[in-house]
Amino acid sequence: MRNPFPPMNVFSDDRIAAIHDAALDVLERLGVKVLHRQARATFKTGGARVDETTEMVHIGRDMVKAALATAPKSFPLIAGNPDRNLLMELGSMVFQPGAGCPHATDLERGRRPGTEQDFRELITLTQHFDVLHMIPPLVEPQDVPIHLRHYAMTKGQMELTDKVPFIYARGAGQVREAFEMLQIARGISDSDFAAHSHCYTIINTNSPRQLDIPMAQGVMDFARAGQMAIITPFTLMGAMAPITVAGAMTLSHAEALAAITLGQLINSGAPVCYGTFTSNVDMKSGAPIFGTPEHFKASLAAGQLARHIGLPWRCASGSAANLGDVQAANETQFGTWGCLLAGATVTLHAAGWLEGGLTVSYEKLITDVEVLQMMAELCTATAADEGGIAMDALEEVQPGGHFFGAAHTMERYQTEFYEPLVADFANIGTWEERGSVDATTRATGIWQGILRDFIPPAGDGDRLAALDHYIDDRIAAGGCAPES
Amino acid sequence: MRNPFPPMNVFSDDRIAAIHDAALDVLERLGVKVLHRQARATFKTGGARVDETTEMVHIGRDMVKAALATAPKSFPLIAGNPDRNLLMELGSMVFQPGAGCPHATDLERGRRPGTEQDFRELITLTQHFDVLHMIPPLVEPQDVPIHLRHYAMTKGQMELTDKVPFIYARGAGQVREAFEMLQIARGISDSDFAAHSHCYTIINTNSPRQLDIPMAQGVMDFARAGQMAIITPFTLMGAMAPITVAGAMTLSHAEALAAITLGQLINSGAPVCYGTFTSNVDMKSGAPIFGTPEHFKASLAAGQLARHIGLPWRCASGSAANLGDVQAANETQFGTWGCLLAGATVTLHAAGWLEGGLTVSYEKLITDVEVLQMMAELCTATAADEGGIAMDALEEVQPGGHFFGAAHTMERYQTEFYEPLVADFANIGTWEERGSVDATTRATGIWQGILRDFIPPAGDGDRLAALDHYIDDRIAAGGCAPES
Repeated sequence: MRNPFPPMNVFSDDRIAAIHDAALDVLERLGVKVLHRQARATFKTGGARVDETTEMVHIGRDMVKAALATAPKSFPLIAGNPDRNLLMELGSMVFQPGAGCPHATDLERGRRPGTEQDFRELITLTQHFDVLHMIPPLVEPQDVPIHLRHYAMTKGQMELTDKVPFIYARGAGQVREAFEMLQIARGISDSDFAAHSHCYTIINTNSPRQLDIPMAQGVMDFARAGQMAIITPFTLMGAMAPITVAGAMTLSHAEALAAITLGQLINSGAPVCYGTFTSNVDMKSGAPIFGTPEHFKASLAAGQLARHIGLPWRCASGSAANLGDVQAANETQFGTWGCLLAGATVTLHAAGWLEGGLTVSYEKLITDVEVLQMMAELCTATAADEGGIAMDALEEVQPGGHFFGAAHTMERYQTEFYEPLVADFANIGTWEERGSVDATTRATGIWQGILRDFIPPAGDGDRLAALDHYIDDRIAAGGCAPES
Repeated sequence: MRNPFPPMNVFSDDRIAAIHDAALDVLERLGVKVLHRQARATFKTGGARVDETTEMVHIGRDMVKAALATAPKSFPLIAGNPDRNLLMELGSMVFQPGAGCPHATDLERGRRPGTEQDFRELITLTQHFDVLHMIPPLVEPQDVPIHLRHYAMTKGQMELTDKVPFIYARGAGQVREAFEMLQIARGISDSDFAAHSHCYTIINTNSPRQLDIPMAQGVMDFARAGQMAIITPFTLMGAMAPITVAGAMTLSHAEALAAITLGQLINSGAPVCYGTFTSNVDMKSGAPIFGTPEHFKASLAAGQLARHIGLPWRCASGSAANLGDVQAANETQFGTWGCLLAGATVTLHAAGWLEGGLTVSYEKLITDVEVLQMMAELCTATAADEGGIAMDALEEVQPGGHFFGAAHTMERYQTEFYEPLVADFANIGTWEERGSVDATTRATGIWQGILRDFIPPAGDGDRLAALDHYIDDRIAAGGCAPES
């Protein structure tokens, strides 16, 4: 999809240039703490001033400028099915459901720690909806030991979806194995894999101004393999970042530029996505909150910074509500509008995300997808040609009449309007006769129906068998522990 | 407020010109049925071709052009309190809650036919929130006989609010009396009243292509008195209008131009607001639906047409849901974004409107106001000066630290973020300890608290006593029946 919304600015162009300049000053003068020895060495070789005692890395403006010159402005993401390929560039519009949640919840089974079954079910729902374009790590399958979890998560994605998959950056071993599993399951040759990004990861810096070992390792591993890393500082205004939008964005921008620079030092031209996830905290409780006016403004500033450097970029919606109520709906829709008006290439957490990411809700995923589908409908062209203006119908129907039976209506009534997913348009009498069921409760039946009727995309049986064989071997060999 | 959102287009400029031209063709060639004899005579004197047998009026392009030349592009609306005055022009942003509902509902008392008490309570809530800028006819006080209802509705507004009030166009007698009541209660001299608009009405044409007696009378009465009429064809795609956005907008535009022309023929330069309310029907049930993608696109087209003719304009949000659930929240927010991106001057039905306008909900009014307040927050300037960029805080907080205690945070934490109305940001444990209350249920306590603590704006006691006296006299004289 292409974003049809005119980009909105929160700051003047000269203030965006000032924020960019301040971020460069942060990198050069204040520096970033890099916990990974090899990453520090890479920065040093690239020209940074490195203090091995304090682990501080001071990155010069020229280094950042060089990295931004080589980072590609446009590149494809290759899915299992070519129809699901995505173009990563400014102007594209890609939605993802909520991600990274330790818990799952639904009205049938309640709130619980995430399991492999939840993970697979949520992958299935994500695969089902065309408006969800990429697979994120929806829920943490906590019933799978951490040294085996990447097998379960990759297997689930390979079996249940043909969209672009996600791989966690939890150490070089797990990443290497996940790449191997992906190549086996989707039949990707080494040269194909090197030529294009077939998966992606998300790198969260440890704000403020710190890059930890697995994240730095991930930046380097994904860059080396030519696979896309989305670099997303998670900067909460008033907590891990300054309380002001401009201050938080200065920090976020600096950290993103540091990691982008590291990746380009490893492999010049490697695909990378600029990312921001800047919202605020409730100053009474310190809790992170989302879908707020400050979150919206930060998204707008991030969009301006992304356009300033010209890279595809990822933003995020979300909700702090504890259940899928009206607050949750309003926060997620508000946050998503912030991403759209900011011109985000990828909007994460656009469906199902509750409690600031502690829980993914099956019902909220459905009700939020309804909104995403309505937004996607706005990307479609609307006719204002002769048939659109409908002078024939205007002539046919007399004053005080109606258009229900007009020829112009009859030709179009089955396809002219968006078909709702969960909205109920019955009048109140009919709705009461049917049991006065609210949208969230109706959503339960919808996700259950999707899971019941789901037909996985046609994978290659031999390849999936080879994947199982690979995983069995690896498990027998003891798995692969994450690094930290 | 000024609209901070970049206007979004759904059609190219040349297609907007084509729709405008098609609307002129509808008026000139097909004509509009005008049921009011005097209105037909006015059109005829102004140069229209009128057939008294069929009551059809054919309005020439030159007449419409002349009307658009004299209709003011910018004018004030005068409230009871000068701080509540509004500037009607493109670029202003004014919100109104839901209007015209026969029923009211809340979680305490359930759904019932609207009463005078409901009307007064909802006026009180509208007065309370700064983000609701004008008073609409929120609910129909059905317990007051129709020939006395305008007394109750005007009295309620004069006693409980100092914002710009609404007057129904239900015949010359009721309108004249309402103007008199307004002048008495707010101490407006005849010359002041003639010079500026101190109230407004809404004129709904009877689509397609018909203007009934009370509405035509209202156009003429308000124009003659120099008070603003909002001309709003209510064109439901597939029902009273063509099924296509372009066709429905052609009809809506034609009808609006017809009524604007009538008003300008009566009083050249009279304040008038271009209005549209175009949504679609559910083609399965024929029920009107709101907050849909088609509604959104129609709003965008209407905004383009309003800019084409240069007049201030009113748009509308809404919801077809039968209760204040997630569907209702999503529809109203989606519809309101359509109005904002369309550049609407006035957005009606932006809070509380359920069942396609059959019911106004107290709780939904509160939860929708939260969204409007967040939107209004986006109109405020955000600093990206030195204090905003916060280099001092970025220097102060070391890698891995936090900003909670930074001097920069301490200076700002009480005012930097939007303060929520109904959103609950507690973590799930605290929220559960407090009873796991959802946003809609929390809203009950909020509207109850507002009604309990409400202090009416300081009115002039003598004037309000004179108003009571006037009303007593009129009731004793038998009241004033509406015309139809």
